[in-house]
Amino acid sequence: MDLDQIVAETAADIEPHRGKGKVADYIPALAKVDPKKFGIAIATPDGACPKAGDADESFSIQSISKVFTFSLALQKAGDDLWKRVWREPSGTPFNSIVQLEREKGIPRNPLVNPGAIVVTDHLIDNGDADAAIDNLLRVLRDHAEDDSIDIDYEVAMSESETGARNRSLAHFMASFGNLENEVEVVLSAYFRQCALALSCAQLARAGLFLAFDGKDPVTGERIVSAQRCRRILAVMMTCGHYDNSGDFAYRIGLPGKSGVGGGVLTIAPNEGAIAVWSPGLNDAGTSTVGALALEELVERTGWSIFG
Amino acid sequence: MDLDQIVAETAADIEPHRGKGKVADYIPALAKVDPKKFGIAIATPDGACPKAGDADESFSIQSISKVFTFSLALQKAGDDLWKRVWREPSGTPFNSIVQLEREKGIPRNPLVNPGAIVVTDHLIDNGDADAAIDNLLRVLRDHAEDDSIDIDYEVAMSESETGARNRSLAHFMASFGNLENEVEVVLSAYFRQCALALSCAQLARAGLFLAFDGKDPVTGERIVSAQRCRRILAVMMTCGHYDNSGDFAYRIGLPGKSGVGGGVLTIAPNEGAIAVWSPGLNDAGTSTVGALALEELVERTGWSIFG
Amino acid sequence: MDLDQIVAETAADIEPHRGKGKVADYIPALAKVDPKKFGIAIATPDGACPKAGDADESFSIQSISKVFTFSLALQKAGDDLWKRVWREPSGTPFNSIVQLEREKGIPRNPLVNPGAIVVTDHLIDNGDADAAIDNLLRVLRDHAEDDSIDIDYEVAMSESETGARNRSLAHFMASFGNLENEVEVVLSAYFRQCALALSCAQLARAGLFLAFDGKDPVTGERIVSAQRCRRILAVMMTCGHYDNSGDFAYRIGLPGKSGVGGGVLTIAPNEGAIAVWSPGLNDAGTSTVGALALEELVERTGWSIFG
Amino acid sequence: MDLDQIVAETAADIEPHRGKGKVADYIPALAKVDPKKFGIAIATPDGACPKAGDADESFSIQSISKVFTFSLALQKAGDDLWKRVWREPSGTPFNSIVQLEREKGIPRNPLVNPGAIVVTDHLIDNGDADAAIDNLLRVLRDHAEDDSIDIDYEVAMSESETGARNRSLAHFMASFGNLENEVEVVLSAYFRQCALALSCAQLARAGLFLAFDGKDPVTGERIVSAQRCRRILAVMMTCGHYDNSGDFAYRIGLPGKSGVGGGVLTIAPNEGAIAVWSPGLNDAGTSTVGALALEELVERTGWSIFG
Repeated sequence: MDLDQIVAETAADIEPHRGKGKVADYIPALAKVDPKKFGIAIATPDGACPKAGDADESFSIQSISKVFTFSLALQKAGDDLWKRVWREPSGTPFNSIVQLEREKGIPRNPLVNPGAIVVTDHLIDNGDADAAIDNLLRVLRDHAEDDSIDIDYEVAMSESETGARNRSLAHFMASFGNLENEVEVVLSAYFRQCALALSCAQLARAGLFLAFDGKDPVTGERIVSAQRCRRILAVMMTCGHYDNSGDFAYRIGLPGKSGVGGGVLTIAPNEGAIAVWSPGLNDAGTSTVGALALEELVERTGWSIFG
Repeated sequence: MDLDQIVAETAADIEPHRGKGKVADYIPALAKVDPKKFGIAIATPDGACPKAGDADESFSIQSISKVFTFSLALQKAGDDLWKRVWREPSGTPFNSIVQLEREKGIPRNPLVNPGAIVVTDHLIDNGDADAAIDNLLRVLRDHAEDDSIDIDYEVAMSESETGARNRSLAHFMASFGNLENEVEVVLSAYFRQCALALSCAQLARAGLFLAFDGKDPVTGERIVSAQRCRRILAVMMTCGHYDNSGDFAYRIGLPGKSGVGGGVLTIAPNEGAIAVWSPGLNDAGTSTVGALALEELVERTGWSIFG
Repeated sequence: MDLDQIVAETAADIEPHRGKGKVADYIPALAKVDPKKFGIAIATPDGACPKAGDADESFSIQSISKVFTFSLALQKAGDDLWKRVWREPSGTPFNSIVQLEREKGIPRNPLVNPGAIVVTDHLIDNGDADAAIDNLLRVLRDHAEDDSIDIDYEVAMSESETGARNRSLAHFMASFGNLENEVEVVLSAYFRQCALALSCAQLARAGLFLAFDGKDPVTGERIVSAQRCRRILAVMMTCGHYDNSGDFAYRIGLPGKSGVGGGVLTIAPNEGAIAVWSPGLNDAGTSTVGALALEELVERTGWSIFG
Repeated sequence: MDLDQIVAETAADIEPHRGKGKVADYIPALAKVDPKKFGIAIATPDGACPKAGDADESFSIQSISKVFTFSLALQKAGDDLWKRVWREPSGTPFNSIVQLEREKGIPRNPLVNPGAIVVTDHLIDNGDADAAIDNLLRVLRDHAEDDSIDIDYEVAMSESETGARNRSLAHFMASFGNLENEVEVVLSAYFRQCALALSCAQLARAGLFLAFDGKDPVTGERIVSAQRCRRILAVMMTCGHYDNSGDFAYRIGLPGKSGVGGGVLTIAPNEGAIAVWSPGLNDAGTSTVGALALEELVERTGWSIFG
């Protein structure tokens, strides 16, 4: 299979769709991104990275960071994590608080906002949000073998200034005793992780271990156990796209995670990690053109997890 | 891989757990089943069927029938089906009506009760529920190569007599114009499909085509297209166990569908179809011991879809 | 106080507003009513009945019948009624089913649809819906001293044909064991009571006893005890207009009950019973022009219950 | 009518019930109050104040303060207030956030927590919470003719420390643009108003104007217009006791407002203002013994608003 050619063809196919969807406008830093941007990159086990379009331009990965914090928290806490968060699809939008009231402050899964806030809380020791973020950065740089990966602090600041809804979610969980650190401490880490800036190529490389049973196929380093890796992918498959997760599984057939910056990280087990980026979103916050590109790619590669 | 041995070991492993869970008691015919029953069978592409326990005893497949009606409706309607039902996990119990009010009579997916009622409605032409059921029976007998498969009419009668909640769901959707046939016509088919009685061996055989891209590997008959088969599995993966779908994906890592009779049909792409049966259920209506057995089996075979 | 003059002035005031609001269109019989109709009548303790406009034209009283069935059920059951229905405002539309799922089949109050269905069920003995309706008719004719009051059977038939939502509510409650009679038996009575046709003059006269501590001031007949009368008014005040009850109390300051036929029965304790009718409705199903007229009337008479 | 005797008899009647209900325990300052406390006082138009029990002991009036801030906001904003808060019963508990999500940050009424937070926000000019609280204190002291009325700052501090749920509600509304001041500024005022400490005698006196069309019958001072007064009472009647408002109207028949400190302020139009206090609460946060005492009192005085 000539992945370079497939990536090029996929990029060509979506050319007429560039600019579709609605760019997130809740923070200025996201709203000003060119809606016609599109990038795609595939990290493969031999260390190659077929890519096309704006695959080397950094974008705000937003909620895709939840995959990496979830992985870290699972390593740190093991099954204890599940005392504080469920692992079920929510059936509701990413920032819904209704479920939290019904289920007494326990969020539905680690990939919706309240669940990710709990996960971030879990990663903070002694109230030191900076240390938690430093560690996350170090891990991502290691995974991606690229020390230039960083946080976009303008975005992080903007997230915090417009973060009323996330503050509400965090205080709500705190009222049920489901946060160990101060709300503002947790959020200061949360807003920074959302503001991580990576290119498609960096993001695909950082997630490559998830496609190979938790072991980086390039460096040979084991990052999580094979069982844990499968479980992370299972949560991505059922919960990775909020109330659009079923549709993504139906159309793409691979575990993935979307971010409102327009990125999607998708894992093809035993094949590679795919990152796409295009800022326009559908109603559930998944990149419209990104999803189209993934559909094309899966059609061409036959990489669906379902046979 | 010696599947006969693996099946035998799996059955031995769950021996101490037999009888766990809570047998469904909403209809007498289900409540009187021996809670210690346990069966497991794997239909394989070579036509063999490793099995253990009560794998040849018929049980009420209940909601597992939704997989087969969904498959038929998708063939009949194509994408038009999605005008009448979503394909997203519901985040709510199997018989919840809350989502229907919020989303104006469109059920969340074809594998929750209201969604399956819409699917059944779709399969009925000219108000002839008997013809629809005859067709379903014929299809299942063909798939399983076993003409003895039948409906347990005592169960069907009992379903109808205690079917107030399903009647409520159906009338609710009818009030939004989302049923084409009379409510009682649709329910008369729906209650019969729930009362289908199959053994683990028959059920696994009937579902085998789903493990091989929609083509029966024994007879060579194509039943659904490869793409459609993947899509059916995607819906099973994200929605097959109501508000327990995330947990099932996390623990088992394979698409499946549970029924309150205690059966679970699970698909291992390119490997086989697995049916387990044990009447005791967890809170979400999935067989407690059945899920344990599947967890064991996946551990031993490495059949997780996630790597 | 010259009520004749006040009624005439009130009618004159609302003249420019005639036709406002949206006529109920869920059944043809209601949809075809002239939207410009307007009637007002006040039954007073001396037997007089100041009135204006179309006050002698019959209209479908719809949910206003719930006041009379509620009164009858309270007499029949006493406090036992409250085991099957709450007496709290619902905060939701008249036909919402969400609250029923959350509160396990117990409706919020006797003046929303599901609550009124339970009340009707309570009035049916031995499955005889006809006897219950005969009794209701007799009671209304007695109260109004007018044997010509009757059911509009065309409307009743139409209600039944389009009654999917009410069927859903009834089956839902039946699934929790909160109906004693067969669903269709209960609904056959319910649809007929909704189809009662009265004029403003008849309706005001029929409700007069509620303004005088439960005793008809004209005939001297005690209909309900003083305490029970106060309680009926309390439920009308807090629950009489679905999710518009607070606004009605705020603007009018009197207990009342609306119907989607455009009628409103309002009680001014120790003064009289007021019936208005105008088919156009607001979003919550209360007559737009009827509420305006009541606001005017209360302004002129000073009859607010709040001082 | 000898109110001194009636008050004494009412107090005697409830003697065996003292201590019933569950004392609020979410803040230590409330939890440590003696559950057997009981006070009752009636402010009458002649300046007298029949009272019994612990009627001169200060308690935390908590949500009863919402009546006074609502009255002030209505004077300040007029109908503009209704752009930011509805006036409908919520059908949900005092601190529920579900309705806020459904209705996009507009709370149901000024007497539930989120509605009262909006009201408090409305009373703060230029971000000066202290000035708003100073004004509220001055108003209450004027109404009650008692300059000793003050805030219990230990309670206020405790409210703030345990105020995660109210913080969540406030940030949620802020995310919809429904707060003009900073969340912590608004809450600093809100927590202080909840911590107002008054005795039954003071509270009844402070609310007396509401029983006389908005005019203090002792001093002759007009505080709000007659129409506005009726409207405040209407909101108290339909919304004053959260999801227990219907039951309170049914049993007591007077507009009132409860607080989780165990106090209830009740208005008998043209008669007087009644304050009761007893710390034990029912499930909806209304004083159990207080409500019993009011039921007795209304039985003896015949003061129901419903005839």
